[in-house]
Amino acid sequence: MSRDGCCGQVYSCLFDYDTPRIALIKSRKIGLLNRFIQLGILAYVIGWVFIWEKGYQEFDTVVSSVTSKVKGVVVTNTTELGVKIWDVADYIIPAQEENAVFVMTNLILTQNQTQGHCPELPETSFCSKEQPCTPGYVGKQSNGVQTGKCVPYNSTVKTCEIFAWCPVENDTHVPDPAFLNGAENFTVLIKNNIWYPKFQVSKRNILSNISSSYLKTCQYDKVNHPFCPIFRLGNIVKEAGESFSDMAVQGGVMGIQINWNCDLDRKLTYCVPKYSFRRLDNREIDHNVSPGYNFRFAKYYKDSNGVESRTLMKVYGIRFDILVFGTAGKFDIIPTMINIGSGAALFGVATVLCDMIVFHFFKKRHYYREKKYKYVEDYDELVGSECGSNP
Amino acid sequence: MSRDGCCGQVYSCLFDYDTPRIALIKSRKIGLLNRFIQLGILAYVIGWVFIWEKGYQEFDTVVSSVTSKVKGVVVTNTTELGVKIWDVADYIIPAQEENAVFVMTNLILTQNQTQGHCPELPETSFCSKEQPCTPGYVGKQSNGVQTGKCVPYNSTVKTCEIFAWCPVENDTHVPDPAFLNGAENFTVLIKNNIWYPKFQVSKRNILSNISSSYLKTCQYDKVNHPFCPIFRLGNIVKEAGESFSDMAVQGGVMGIQINWNCDLDRKLTYCVPKYSFRRLDNREIDHNVSPGYNFRFAKYYKDSNGVESRTLMKVYGIRFDILVFGTAGKFDIIPTMINIGSGAALFGVATVLCDMIVFHFFKKRHYYREKKYKYVEDYDELVGSECGSNP
Amino acid sequence: MSRDGCCGQVYSCLFDYDTPRIALIKSRKIGLLNRFIQLGILAYVIGWVFIWEKGYQEFDTVVSSVTSKVKGVVVTNTTELGVKIWDVADYIIPAQEENAVFVMTNLILTQNQTQGHCPELPETSFCSKEQPCTPGYVGKQSNGVQTGKCVPYNSTVKTCEIFAWCPVENDTHVPDPAFLNGAENFTVLIKNNIWYPKFQVSKRNILSNISSSYLKTCQYDKVNHPFCPIFRLGNIVKEAGESFSDMAVQGGVMGIQINWNCDLDRKLTYCVPKYSFRRLDNREIDHNVSPGYNFRFAKYYKDSNGVESRTLMKVYGIRFDILVFGTAGKFDIIPTMINIGSGAALFGVATVLCDMIVFHFFKKRHYYREKKYKYVEDYDELVGSECGSNP
Repeated sequence: MSRDGCCGQVYSCLFDYDTPRIALIKSRKIGLLNRFIQLGILAYVIGWVFIWEKGYQEFDTVVSSVTSKVKGVVVTNTTELGVKIWDVADYIIPAQEENAVFVMTNLILTQNQTQGHCPELPETSFCSKEQPCTPGYVGKQSNGVQTGKCVPYNSTVKTCEIFAWCPVENDTHVPDPAFLNGAENFTVLIKNNIWYPKFQVSKRNILSNISSSYLKTCQYDKVNHPFCPIFRLGNIVKEAGESFSDMAVQGGVMGIQINWNCDLDRKLTYCVPKYSFRRLDNREIDHNVSPGYNFRFAKYYKDSNGVESRTLMKVYGIRFDILVFGTAGKFDIIPTMINIGSGAALFGVATVLCDMIVFHFFKKRHYYREKKYKYVEDYDELVGSECGSNP
Repeated sequence: MSRDGCCGQVYSCLFDYDTPRIALIKSRKIGLLNRFIQLGILAYVIGWVFIWEKGYQEFDTVVSSVTSKVKGVVVTNTTELGVKIWDVADYIIPAQEENAVFVMTNLILTQNQTQGHCPELPETSFCSKEQPCTPGYVGKQSNGVQTGKCVPYNSTVKTCEIFAWCPVENDTHVPDPAFLNGAENFTVLIKNNIWYPKFQVSKRNILSNISSSYLKTCQYDKVNHPFCPIFRLGNIVKEAGESFSDMAVQGGVMGIQINWNCDLDRKLTYCVPKYSFRRLDNREIDHNVSPGYNFRFAKYYKDSNGVESRTLMKVYGIRFDILVFGTAGKFDIIPTMINIGSGAALFGVATVLCDMIVFHFFKKRHYYREKKYKYVEDYDELVGSECGSNP
Repeated sequence: MSRDGCCGQVYSCLFDYDTPRIALIKSRKIGLLNRFIQLGILAYVIGWVFIWEKGYQEFDTVVSSVTSKVKGVVVTNTTELGVKIWDVADYIIPAQEENAVFVMTNLILTQNQTQGHCPELPETSFCSKEQPCTPGYVGKQSNGVQTGKCVPYNSTVKTCEIFAWCPVENDTHVPDPAFLNGAENFTVLIKNNIWYPKFQVSKRNILSNISSSYLKTCQYDKVNHPFCPIFRLGNIVKEAGESFSDMAVQGGVMGIQINWNCDLDRKLTYCVPKYSFRRLDNREIDHNVSPGYNFRFAKYYKDSNGVESRTLMKVYGIRFDILVFGTAGKFDIIPTMINIGSGAALFGVATVLCDMIVFHFFKKRHYYREKKYKYVEDYDELVGSECGSNP
């Protein structure tokens, strides 16, 4: 054995080839079993990895830009305000947002507020001689700072006087049906441009077969107009399984989901948006604590004497969040190779499984085992163990 | 064979060692082929997995916070408005956004609107004795509710009277060149703080070698000032390959991309932002349906009698969306081990490939096959099959 | 060997079973070593892959919707403005945002601005007979367009006259302590609805055991009220390790992180939000260039003659970005199978490692090597190589 010399080792390293020795068992049962398991693995690799999970593709996530535009007017008629018209500039607050649009549906209006002294609302701060007010105190739900005086709120009730924007807003009664219930008929045009950076592919949701005239008249409909990017607000809410008039009272958050899953191995015209709608807030019907969505907002005015007044609006409404999802896949050699490789590696499992069956459950396992295994005694411990003789 | 006893099985399980038997073929051709394939696998593992894909690193995605501030004034001179100056508080709407900033570039102004009755625009609602107006009807593109009367819009045309904010906005002619075309010279300072949660690393785009005085005078330039966080709007649009004066007319959406890819195995000072710009809307030049970006916005006033009036603005402009991307990598033992492991497993493929070549294409394949394989007859079916004798 | 016939090949392909021949070495040392390495691999697979990384689960990332509502009033008393109260509609700008809320904490107010001519601030544009002003020039930091005149700014200094909103804002002195330092006591209610699309699971951060009355009085506290969704602004800043009164002066950006990591194999009630807070801007304390967060904002007024004036506000404040993170995992058969499979594949590594040890470091390596290897001479080149005889 002169092969341990240095030159020999390099020689052997370069020019020798190691290949496992194989016992080739001619047996229909085992052979078929083996092929059957391999077939299962092949089916998994092709069916699941390649066809279902598209293992031959590289993937990229969508980058998106959204703009939206609401259209519609509604007339209200109340004793307080008279006949009044509301258009886009009135009911969209703020005028533009990045991936959302807020539409006012209900309103508690407090006009002509000026800074001054007035009684607090009864709910939070009743007062009497026994229960006096604390100057400088600000309650958690309060609208101003207590002056310390106890003044009549109306003919029966006395409350603490506060320094605040007066008169104080009274939001105990939310208008029901909602003040701008007609918002149901408003439409929103959503313009969505997407981009798959890795593949340098970009598209917009106004597809190339949509003409200007179609865009002026169409309205989204799951069945008949699935690619019209103009949505009636009432339909959005209805498709999400909610009632618009209920939602309009307390407000809420709706999600407009745009799904751009694309197989870029096919023609780009097959890459189209899929719209779906869901309500994003208030999923627990039985636990309706702090429902809806509202915020406060003011318009400021100055009279000729420079005194500032404001109109405070507690605005209830529906915020439409536009959520753009999507993954695009395109054939790429690297994931293909990796998946073929790891698929091939799985074939080894077939042999392991067959071996387990053959050498444990077959009647003639000893016969096969003798062919597969070569028993090599321990060189050092040729003496038998206590367990028995293993010659 | 007393090894099937229970004690023997445990003994064998613990103290026996299974190793595949190897046929070591001394052949220059096969040996070199084998080493060559292994070299290819090694090159792939080291070159692709470790150097290119940085398989020895753990990765984290950036968390980012962006604030922005626009500077600049522009003077306009029109017959309607006279000489007027526009500064930040006038042309940024809304005053602050999270990852975006909107700059007004064009404007259709309708001053002194009050709620009342006036004729609708001719485009949508011509009327005559034969084609009367419907009281209460609201057209899709309409600005108000029809009263049912047919009134003269001008000396030649009659349109339906509507209850609306009057006079109605006439947006048929978009000013071209854009009203605030001078916005090209505005600058925007972008402050971007990033954070890699997994590595507890944070940085800002105002690098530590940027002084206050440099920040007052610098302007981003790909070549000379690549780290100055102050961008001239005109340059942003130009770098994206668009024309500012074109874009200013109808508005649009620009993306300011900040890329923070960092190799945290190197010094943190090498981790710097890379800016790039692209237009996010309107990628299909030949299909220019519903271009640009605009929204409506109103300023509300009250006269001394408490009558509300408003100035309606149809605002066209460019929204700059600031998109922050980034992945940081740092050496970690676990991905390193996993990649070394799966790289080692790939070496098995070399043997499979060599075997395929040796046992199918070599002239002397029978000689080698006999050495590698041991033919084991089926114990049960020692009788030959119909296909031929397999003794 | 009639097996090379076509029929024979198909027969052999179907009914032959290849299994590697194994040398079973009876040696306590090697056997134990092998089992020890296998035990390590098993421990890694079970401990790391299955228990730590939850390899038996499929994962999904959270989809979230956030609304917020701030409460609180503060009174200020300055010589310029007198006693003034600030409530939600005054200090939240804009009134609603998608995943953020901005609270004004400091303010530079410039009242009664009208468009006209006035001297520029001294800082940027001193002038004299030697250093004249340029008509039409707009400085980078300037508030208007120079008319070319040099006019007295005060009794000692002359500056260029500009056409601008006059008088020009003087923001050299930022109020310290902050004007609305009392914002520390404001509270913000955060309503967060999350959704795991893959598992069709949704939750909100107002947990089902939170009653309306608890929600009216509670305040978040890491220890005592970890699930109360109402946060005192001062506490948020304090928990992030910052000082509110410092931050209030120049403004800043705070992150409110909500972590929704959920193990959906357990009961859904264990899936609860975890709040944490960090400051998102200004991480480099030693390099405090361009600190804080501010923007300009105007309220517009019209007097009885139709002349527009405005109140310009340079608003400093804290923007609270609400960042919702989260991953949910649930048992799924596919990742389980994949991880078991690749775990099993790792067992092969044990044999490779043992072989390396046995055949390189064991004294009796030649004895074992002879049993494992079968030396096959090259059929073509039976003549010895130059390196020595290899019979």
